Amino acid sequence: MSKKIILSGVQPTARPHIGNYFGAMKQFVNFQTTQPDAEKFFMIVDYHALNTVQDAAQMKQFTYDLALDYLAIGLDPEHSTLFKQSDVSAHTELAWIFDTIITMPYLMRAHAFKDAEAKNKEISVGTFNYPVLMAADILLYGTTTVPVGQDQKQHVEYSRDIAQKFNSIFGETFHLPEPMIMEHVGTVPGIDGRKMSKSYNNTIPLFATREEITKAVMGIVTDSGSDIPTNVRAIHALFKSETELTALYDANKGKYKILKEALIEDIDAFIKPLRERRAELAQDPDRVAQVLKQGAVRANERAQAKLIEVKKAIGVL
Amino acid sequence: MSKKIILSGVQPTARPHIGNYFGAMKQFVNFQTTQPDAEKFFMIVDYHALNTVQDAAQMKQFTYDLALDYLAIGLDPEHSTLFKQSDVSAHTELAWIFDTIITMPYLMRAHAFKDAEAKNKEISVGTFNYPVLMAADILLYGTTTVPVGQDQKQHVEYSRDIAQKFNSIFGETFHLPEPMIMEHVGTVPGIDGRKMSKSYNNTIPLFATREEITKAVMGIVTDSGSDIPTNVRAIHALFKSETELTALYDANKGKYKILKEALIEDIDAFIKPLRERRAELAQDPDRVAQVLKQGAVRANERAQAKLIEVKKAIGVL
Repeated sequence: MSKKIILSGVQPTARPHIGNYFGAMKQFVNFQTTQPDAEKFFMIVDYHALNTVQDAAQMKQFTYDLALDYLAIGLDPEHSTLFKQSDVSAHTELAWIFDTIITMPYLMRAHAFKDAEAKNKEISVGTFNYPVLMAADILLYGTTTVPVGQDQKQHVEYSRDIAQKFNSIFGETFHLPEPMIMEHVGTVPGIDGRKMSKSYNNTIPLFATREEITKAVMGIVTDSGSDIPTNVRAIHALFKSETELTALYDANKGKYKILKEALIEDIDAFIKPLRERRAELAQDPDRVAQVLKQGAVRANERAQAKLIEVKKAIGVL
Repeated sequence: MSKKIILSGVQPTARPHIGNYFGAMKQFVNFQTTQPDAEKFFMIVDYHALNTVQDAAQMKQFTYDLALDYLAIGLDPEHSTLFKQSDVSAHTELAWIFDTIITMPYLMRAHAFKDAEAKNKEISVGTFNYPVLMAADILLYGTTTVPVGQDQKQHVEYSRDIAQKFNSIFGETFHLPEPMIMEHVGTVPGIDGRKMSKSYNNTIPLFATREEITKAVMGIVTDSGSDIPTNVRAIHALFKSETELTALYDANKGKYKILKEALIEDIDAFIKPLRERRAELAQDPDRVAQVLKQGAVRANERAQAKLIEVKKAIGVL
């Protein structure tokens, strides 16, 4: 059996919240212990983000922050190749090659495009072409496994389709990746009870200060009258076992303030070491640049080897 | 005033005919004498051709042939940078960056897409995205001047639009190119009187053998009854002055055979040195590879410098 290769990408578009952490970030870092023999690529997909972040200072800041965030939660750049998509030109080059073998109607069936059409929104060509760049991102590394949320399965399906189409025209070149469904993606509740999401403005930032945590928790929507503040308990469940939770909430029926204060303590106890680690890493701003540079070298080595294979297959080399 | 930079590209998709020669190829080579101070880039656009040529052996052959064709007609690789698009990854990378700043409706207004839609044809995403890659091709080199036929003006307009859009979002980065309308593009008549075009199957190949020339000329459609065989004379006009032509056709009214034989002689006299030069160059197959390699180095130098400027402007560097 060939080696497992896990690849994941995150857009540098916003400060992460605890929903992102439990949904995806933590899982990726966990692979370092649960999948020690797998190769792991972790990509900051700045060229995808360019569809929405069109300001150089923001792009720089978001990218630096995201790299620092991942290092702070324990991503080990010796184990996982951490790199920026824009540092590997093979991604966009392969995306173009794929563009030439797939049809407009096929790509128009993608969710993002259909959603935008339904809303009568003017999307960018890059948003439309997104599944193709993502297929290139995945296929360049011989990826076997792509961790995704249930609602992102289509991306992996596009990669498989495109890989198959290329293989059938130009000969066996790409390995077909499999999705690895991550259960917690998008299921962490926000302070209003809906799923935690930047667009709902109901988040608790991952590296929140004590004050930010207090403010967020005090803002959790509670339905007065019931013994158990559902939304408080739902977020609390991320930090305490079910047994501990039951004991705590049974002992404090209707005492919202006490329960919220307990939640603040628990969130802060969890975030504090991350926050401190992040502050420590931020002391050496060159560190991020070094890690990304080293990651780019490793990623380019792999990606260029595959691209050369592709170029030979299509006859331009 | 800044230096004139002329850029042109041709797809390696078919053997050139004399229509291509008088319409475009010759004009480009002429720039070496008419525009001695201009920088000249001549690009074999294999990544565009990939939309139609999806066979490695064909792609290789067409590319090699096209380079040899241009060298044979006098393109001097010391004066004009002759290179393959696929040897310069900055083209597809910049095309992606442009994809993120332009909208679907804007690109859907392009001729190629509208024509395909009108014919209810399933075009590739690459064909749809073609104007964007072409804008990248042009803008990467600081091109001031793009020689085009009247019907290709839209390509330059797209490049100008996209350059302006980029400049307005990210700051002054690209020079706006101007079209240089070439009069003879698409006006050379074929052997059936319609414009000479591969799709009409009415061509005389540029490097035709004597036998191919004879066959093509004997196949020129003539309307019996008239003194002057219009289609013969129209092609003949490419090789003789109007004065010479009038003398010849007046002296041989109705004598189609004699006139066709005269045309065969004139075409062959014109093609023979080109054919011989091509055969001579073909003796050293490594020569083409060397020229393209040298061209790639020069083109990459220029393109990378511009791409770095772009990457800084968008904040990924």
